[in-house]
Amino acid sequence: MSFCFWWWKLDLITTQDWSISDLEKILQNARELKKNRQISDDLKGKTFVMIFFNPSTRTRNSFAIAMNELGGYPLFFDAEKTWLGQKSESPKDTAKVISRYAHGLGIRIFPNITKWKYGASNQLVRELAKWADIPIINLEDDLYHPCQALADVFTIREKKKKMTGKKFVLSWAYHPKPLPVSVPNSTVLTMTRFGLDVTLVHPKNYELDKTILATARKNAKESGGSLEIVNSFKDGYRDADVVYVKSWGSLKQYGNFPEEKKLRVPYRGKWTIDEAKLDLTKKDSIFMHCLPIRRNIVATDAVVDGSHSVVYDQAENRLHVQKAILLELMK
Amino acid sequence: MSFCFWWWKLDLITTQDWSISDLEKILQNARELKKNRQISDDLKGKTFVMIFFNPSTRTRNSFAIAMNELGGYPLFFDAEKTWLGQKSESPKDTAKVISRYAHGLGIRIFPNITKWKYGASNQLVRELAKWADIPIINLEDDLYHPCQALADVFTIREKKKKMTGKKFVLSWAYHPKPLPVSVPNSTVLTMTRFGLDVTLVHPKNYELDKTILATARKNAKESGGSLEIVNSFKDGYRDADVVYVKSWGSLKQYGNFPEEKKLRVPYRGKWTIDEAKLDLTKKDSIFMHCLPIRRNIVATDAVVDGSHSVVYDQAENRLHVQKAILLELMK
Amino acid sequence: MSFCFWWWKLDLITTQDWSISDLEKILQNARELKKNRQISDDLKGKTFVMIFFNPSTRTRNSFAIAMNELGGYPLFFDAEKTWLGQKSESPKDTAKVISRYAHGLGIRIFPNITKWKYGASNQLVRELAKWADIPIINLEDDLYHPCQALADVFTIREKKKKMTGKKFVLSWAYHPKPLPVSVPNSTVLTMTRFGLDVTLVHPKNYELDKTILATARKNAKESGGSLEIVNSFKDGYRDADVVYVKSWGSLKQYGNFPEEKKLRVPYRGKWTIDEAKLDLTKKDSIFMHCLPIRRNIVATDAVVDGSHSVVYDQAENRLHVQKAILLELMK
Repeated sequence: MSFCFWWWKLDLITTQDWSISDLEKILQNARELKKNRQISDDLKGKTFVMIFFNPSTRTRNSFAIAMNELGGYPLFFDAEKTWLGQKSESPKDTAKVISRYAHGLGIRIFPNITKWKYGASNQLVRELAKWADIPIINLEDDLYHPCQALADVFTIREKKKKMTGKKFVLSWAYHPKPLPVSVPNSTVLTMTRFGLDVTLVHPKNYELDKTILATARKNAKESGGSLEIVNSFKDGYRDADVVYVKSWGSLKQYGNFPEEKKLRVPYRGKWTIDEAKLDLTKKDSIFMHCLPIRRNIVATDAVVDGSHSVVYDQAENRLHVQKAILLELMK
Repeated sequence: MSFCFWWWKLDLITTQDWSISDLEKILQNARELKKNRQISDDLKGKTFVMIFFNPSTRTRNSFAIAMNELGGYPLFFDAEKTWLGQKSESPKDTAKVISRYAHGLGIRIFPNITKWKYGASNQLVRELAKWADIPIINLEDDLYHPCQALADVFTIREKKKKMTGKKFVLSWAYHPKPLPVSVPNSTVLTMTRFGLDVTLVHPKNYELDKTILATARKNAKESGGSLEIVNSFKDGYRDADVVYVKSWGSLKQYGNFPEEKKLRVPYRGKWTIDEAKLDLTKKDSIFMHCLPIRRNIVATDAVVDGSHSVVYDQAENRLHVQKAILLELMK
Repeated sequence: MSFCFWWWKLDLITTQDWSISDLEKILQNARELKKNRQISDDLKGKTFVMIFFNPSTRTRNSFAIAMNELGGYPLFFDAEKTWLGQKSESPKDTAKVISRYAHGLGIRIFPNITKWKYGASNQLVRELAKWADIPIINLEDDLYHPCQALADVFTIREKKKKMTGKKFVLSWAYHPKPLPVSVPNSTVLTMTRFGLDVTLVHPKNYELDKTILATARKNAKESGGSLEIVNSFKDGYRDADVVYVKSWGSLKQYGNFPEEKKLRVPYRGKWTIDEAKLDLTKKDSIFMHCLPIRRNIVATDAVVDGSHSVVYDQAENRLHVQKAILLELMK
């Protein structure tokens, strides 16, 4: 949230910037929007510009369709077609100019775009937000993926009703590439704010950013939840209500691919989520993943397609939650 | 057409999957839509997602504008921007997720995307159709181009009124590249179903798929049409009502470019359609091509721009026929 | 403007093709559209197709949003996704086919696309215009950028009220790359038509095309303005009302990059616009640039962000002026 001298605008760069009541408002409105999926004119004449530096399936489609169903205009502005992407134009000028045309600006920018300098992609998002006169929505940078995290909270509440006392496991998985930490960061930051008992399960060398963890602990204290970190499935999965699987690269060799690979390879095959591991959880536990998922590497087909899995509901909820976000920021 | 346990959805992957009465219904509705090209709200709030793995002029523009004129939302989802294109995501997950957001899914995928394994691109379309809960429209794969074939039937009927007793020539042409067989396959399959007397004119080594030809013969028998294959213009073009020119690569060296080229090169310059060849046809014959056309290689300027040519009407009819298809599948 | 045998259509390829009263009408309507930025149905059901061979920030976004706010449908048709871009399809066929679907066609094509053959990109635009049955809008080719020039006239009039007797300086700047001459050509051609006293300030070897200058002189004579060319800031900037900065490559080594660079390098650092140079102008002078701008190379941050600068208003005015253009051509 940023405050300007003569008016304020709301950005969504990380859920941590928002008050819990503002987040609850989004979730509440999303519930209504899901119950009654219909066409409105709420954002008629409003344009939401989306700059994508990286591929996307859910974010592109769900934001575009959300805008259209709200009567607004979604406008893709692919990074390679902009002068920003060409480094010919400063973020300031891009932000100032788009502010004259559009009513909201989304940006997706992964670590590769800023050469794996930790936090540099988020810095670009923040710089655009600083100069823009319109709301900025983070469509996933190198630190955060707030729209995913909010859709995930929505999904958990939809399936589990109450958050308090529920055990949420964020479980690392092996993947052939070192993936960004945006989803785990946003997950641990957001779930701790909603009072869940969060257990992080990951092998050695895959610790998350200390600052993120410190904030998550503070969140848990305030919300009545908890944060625990363990290195084995046995300890972590016991009696879990929610298992959220996600791979990420080691911060110890961030952006150093050959060295990071050496850390990751020992876990190949051992950190795939299968039915045996899910058997450690509660009978009615749910299995979550933000997709895309490498099947039979991150989790087996039996798990992804199994009765615990809510991955497609999770994907669908992006649409409803983002409608609520767009309305809050642009209406 | 696929039947699911609690509801059915209609896909358009090849015209052969549809009954003749369903095809006739499309053509009939397209006639009305062409007569009265106007803006409607028939597909208001409906989204048609289009995944393009390959370039397109007519298909992209005509589908997008068709959707817009029907009040719906056309959403391009370029393959290189999706996780599907990156092989990070299974066709099942892509189909399931898009089904949650959109109301129809189109896909264009040429043989190069699946490494010229004959039928493999069609298999991907069929797999998406298997998992999707929304209608799938084939925007041209490696086997079929059903929307083109239907627009072509529409055009022939528009120009010739009746199909029965009319001689339709599908004529091979030389082209610098080995082009896919999707258009000739769909042409021969569809024209035989509508009772035309189809003559295939192509040189040695350019025989079409035997299974396709067998189905086409069966179609002709049922419709009262016929199918004949000849290797010379003299035999083929005599008294033709319709000459449809199209190049395709030899199935004998499918995907084997240097060897295929050896088969094709002998026909360079000899298989260009010129006015002399058209003189063999009826005075009021029409010249058709699906475009894009390499002028003066596939056919001379005099032919493409001449009085027999209906190529731009043919392109325009894509719009009207596809509107009817979209309405049938998504309304 | 082109006249066809049974109806005429208006194209906007260069402002020079239009009468002054037609240009004034655009500016007048743009004023109303800016005063009252609202959603209309004026272009409902109309499609404006835009072919971009090159990147764009302002043109893409402002035309797309203009169309949407007029109730129409903006359809991007990226060059690499078309058969035109693949050289498989002639400009004639592309123009004829799009004319069957859409109601207007824009094209951006820089010199690199036609291998820096001076005027060849403009030739392609003119060829599309020749065959198209719908209005063509030049979104910047290698010779002209008419929409930018009209937005610039609009901005000057907005800031300076009257044009007569006002001194307009078009000032060359150093840039790491040899940029096209489209903006300076259109600027000098258009400003002289509106009665400004135009002073061109550029170093040796950066003379503009003689034909353009001859036409500009003729324009000035007719409008009561003037055209002067000087090689120093001192002479050029004195008492200027408007300073318009723009870099361009030398026509003496057009498309010959290493040789052109030798001509340009001596001016590095010396032809950056800074506050000291702006001090030579009138106290209430305005600083203009079409963006994107390389900050601190073309002009200093202090100038771009300073009190003289109107660069963001200039960018915004693209939207309003283009709305007027779209209405004039497509309504």
